[in-house]
Amino acid sequence: MELKQCINYLLTTAQHNIFQSLSNRLSQFDLTPVQYGVLDCIWKENATSPKQIAELLMLENSTVSGVLERMEKKMLIIRNISKEDRRYIQVELTDKGRDLEKDVVAVVKAFNQEVFSTMSAKEEEALKELLRKLALLDY
Amino acid sequence: MELKQCINYLLTTAQHNIFQSLSNRLSQFDLTPVQYGVLDCIWKENATSPKQIAELLMLENSTVSGVLERMEKKMLIIRNISKEDRRYIQVELTDKGRDLEKDVVAVVKAFNQEVFSTMSAKEEEALKELLRKLALLDY
Repeated sequence: MELKQCINYLLTTAQHNIFQSLSNRLSQFDLTPVQYGVLDCIWKENATSPKQIAELLMLENSTVSGVLERMEKKMLIIRNISKEDRRYIQVELTDKGRDLEKDVVAVVKAFNQEVFSTMSAKEEEALKELLRKLALLDY
Repeated sequence: MELKQCINYLLTTAQHNIFQSLSNRLSQFDLTPVQYGVLDCIWKENATSPKQIAELLMLENSTVSGVLERMEKKMLIIRNISKEDRRYIQVELTDKGRDLEKDVVAVVKAFNQEVFSTMSAKEEEALKELLRKLALLDY
């Protein structure tokens, strides 16, 4: 068993590099990759609850709660107490959070195009399928 | 551009799941995946310097320095001042660190076999190649 054959080593080193590159691209917007993920859940999926966002991003509720707190400080979102049920939090975009959509999505799209330009369309599809499988494996 | 097509999202969710599963398997030895990685560099590659370990694991020197400090507290390794050049640190296994090799490697090997049993040999090779490529992409 060689370390360089270990799935955890291979995923961790790949993720680290891609995460760093995307972080560099998003720094011009003062956004981290996970903050982009949260915004995207609201832009595209109209997610309004922290629980929904956690499920879409496959993160712990406590992680999302911390991310939302930092995003509120950056004035990207507002957290309101739900009018329908006061036990729940509702997440809402600010104008600043709404206005970022077009430029941020364009940067993320260009980044993905660059990454996937290094492989064939068939390899890209196979990689995506295998990563989705690994994200859901349950031991 | 959908979030679920984004390479960073796909890698991060896959890495998170696999890392958690391997962490669970290694907890019986009171080891984290990165601590296993460091031990493996010494077991298999006879790495003796923090710099060499950082290169093999594709980590920052400062990260490795923190990991080694925690591993010394757990009495897995000792950090000595190099006898050849007093500016350098030399990492050495303790008996405890040496004795873990057989059992830990067996657990990591079994874990990898389980993960890769979910795909064909061809898919496994393609995945490994693509992950190695993504780890080295330079933007």
